[in-house]
Amino acid sequence: MTIEMFEKPLGMRDDFPLIAKQKADLRKQGTQLIEQSGYELLQTPTLEYYETIGKISAISDDALFKLLDSQGKTLVLRPDMTSPIARVAASKLLREKMPIRLGYYSNVFRAQKREGGRPAEFEQMGVELIGDDSLYADAEVISLAWDILKELGVGSARIVIGHTRLLELILADFGLDAEQSGKVRELFVAKNGVGVEQLAKELPIAEDELTSFLKLMQATTVVDWKRWINEENEEQRELYRDMERLEQLLERNGLGDAITFDISFSSHMTYYTGLVFEFYGAGSGFPLGSGGRYDGLMEQFGLQVGATGFGLRVDRLLESVTPEKAEQPHTLILFDEQSEQHAFDKAQQLRDSGKRVTLQYAPAVKALEPFTALFTEVIREEDLRNG
Amino acid sequence: MTIEMFEKPLGMRDDFPLIAKQKADLRKQGTQLIEQSGYELLQTPTLEYYETIGKISAISDDALFKLLDSQGKTLVLRPDMTSPIARVAASKLLREKMPIRLGYYSNVFRAQKREGGRPAEFEQMGVELIGDDSLYADAEVISLAWDILKELGVGSARIVIGHTRLLELILADFGLDAEQSGKVRELFVAKNGVGVEQLAKELPIAEDELTSFLKLMQATTVVDWKRWINEENEEQRELYRDMERLEQLLERNGLGDAITFDISFSSHMTYYTGLVFEFYGAGSGFPLGSGGRYDGLMEQFGLQVGATGFGLRVDRLLESVTPEKAEQPHTLILFDEQSEQHAFDKAQQLRDSGKRVTLQYAPAVKALEPFTALFTEVIREEDLRNG
Repeated sequence: MTIEMFEKPLGMRDDFPLIAKQKADLRKQGTQLIEQSGYELLQTPTLEYYETIGKISAISDDALFKLLDSQGKTLVLRPDMTSPIARVAASKLLREKMPIRLGYYSNVFRAQKREGGRPAEFEQMGVELIGDDSLYADAEVISLAWDILKELGVGSARIVIGHTRLLELILADFGLDAEQSGKVRELFVAKNGVGVEQLAKELPIAEDELTSFLKLMQATTVVDWKRWINEENEEQRELYRDMERLEQLLERNGLGDAITFDISFSSHMTYYTGLVFEFYGAGSGFPLGSGGRYDGLMEQFGLQVGATGFGLRVDRLLESVTPEKAEQPHTLILFDEQSEQHAFDKAQQLRDSGKRVTLQYAPAVKALEPFTALFTEVIREEDLRNG
Repeated sequence: MTIEMFEKPLGMRDDFPLIAKQKADLRKQGTQLIEQSGYELLQTPTLEYYETIGKISAISDDALFKLLDSQGKTLVLRPDMTSPIARVAASKLLREKMPIRLGYYSNVFRAQKREGGRPAEFEQMGVELIGDDSLYADAEVISLAWDILKELGVGSARIVIGHTRLLELILADFGLDAEQSGKVRELFVAKNGVGVEQLAKELPIAEDELTSFLKLMQATTVVDWKRWINEENEEQRELYRDMERLEQLLERNGLGDAITFDISFSSHMTYYTGLVFEFYGAGSGFPLGSGGRYDGLMEQFGLQVGATGFGLRVDRLLESVTPEKAEQPHTLILFDEQSEQHAFDKAQQLRDSGKRVTLQYAPAVKALEPFTALFTEVIREEDLRNG
């Protein structure tokens, strides 16, 4: 047998008690805010059909865990929560009640190819607001994500906002076709400024527009975007006005200083067709989460409605949050046959008063010293007998 | 495409908000008791190696969800939590701190072959007490499961207790070999009294012992077991004394009336080699959970230590618990462009006071009546404008 008894599959991890406890705390705080903002929590199954959720999910095919069921159909371990929630929201039971607000705290799966790489299973916490086309919906979900980051105590939290459709229109105005535009966006996603400069030489961009093109990665506020907006184009004008309005709403909601409006920002998640955003914080080089508007995804489930939402990665939140260091009180009561009744009564009394108590038959402990060291208070047999 | 967009794989279910909420409440109450009794919660990965956890788990091979990883190794979706926790407990990090108390709330997987059958994914809540051979450990886990059932409000809760090893010894004393004994135990597990009677005719049981043999399924207290105990056999005498002592401890812990000591009871989980038990309650024909002592399992991970634990099935607990019917207060604030600032301030004020508030841009709602019907209180634009 080439597998050791203690090995776990590639990218799979155990959450030992300390991490499990920190996650439980994050979950509690986050889902409480989600529920208080009117979202209903739900849970979808771990396994979905590849033909539906697997293909829709926007996660690349080779990152999907696939298996065959007893009927020969291909299943996947859910790679994200947005597509399963879209499936649920489009079902008969819920589609009549739009707009619907759904929230989740769930694990998702991404197959890994190398040791020591990224986790193949991780937890996401997020919401989907489905059936509301308005900008208020976008402002709501971004502000809710922000409130969660603040509540959890994420340091130096930041939001980057872009607009996939507006970027597409602007790149078209520079004379780029769909393929060229796609290449540029890939470099933008990778934040590869040097690559953009090199590629620009091969693109059909007018010489007097090259400086303007190369500045696309430098915008930080909505007013910066104005130089690229073609006022002749109604769609561009309207999208720009939307972004101005969104900026106002988010500033009013207290997010002003934390936002970068980056016109070059777009997402590798192909179902985001309009507004897109990502969250960052101290301690994690990767985004803490992301989101955006995905009206097109709902169409695949037969619904012509708008939808917007975000998902935060719990593993990265943990890196950005300073956990409470205070040792939790935990009493150990050691007993033997003679003191058993006393010990039992004492434990019950302490637990009734809200204390955490481990009750342990002393002769069953092989190494008393390392064992008792795990507790903040130890009550021994002799203490029990003496009172 | 033969799969409809809304279909889910065989045995897979969505937990809609009402069920998700009830489960969250059960989880909160149950894990709080588990932690208060000194257990640390942990989480193991969804995927494990077939060669380790898959083979050890005691779940039949055709009920395992299997897949291949990128390196060609066979993985399984975890079929239970006892084996992964045994893996963790046997790791370097924890094996020095015995006895260790670990708890969990996790989903597990069992592949199904038919539509409309049992769930292929369900949640379990339980504990494992590893490294304590004493009867106090068994009494502790049984009493903890019992406290959880009481705390959750399970009606007519009952516990059935048996002893796999003692039953094996008694069946041997009736003259049965291992194969015959196995057949009898299968009928016992299936509670098939008629089958036992029929099989008995073919078994080498002395005629004057047949009545005694057929009464094995009727024992309800430990003293009932005495008729089958061979006083010449030291192991039987000791195990019987253990059961007497366990009965006393559980009676002292307040479980007396709820327990049936059924000598014929054993488990299909092959790693339970000694004490075994099952929990029942009103509303569910199936056991709510089960547990027992599995010293042998730890040996497979290289540890010569005792271990005992239980797991409760959350789906069945839900059937046995009367959920709180009281509608949770949920305020809807409807706004338009003019009242937006007012609405936002009002929502913030109500949420700060702990209320649950949905803030909704009214023109985005297509059907106002069914939407507002979902809330316990509705504040409209005109209310906001009028103060």
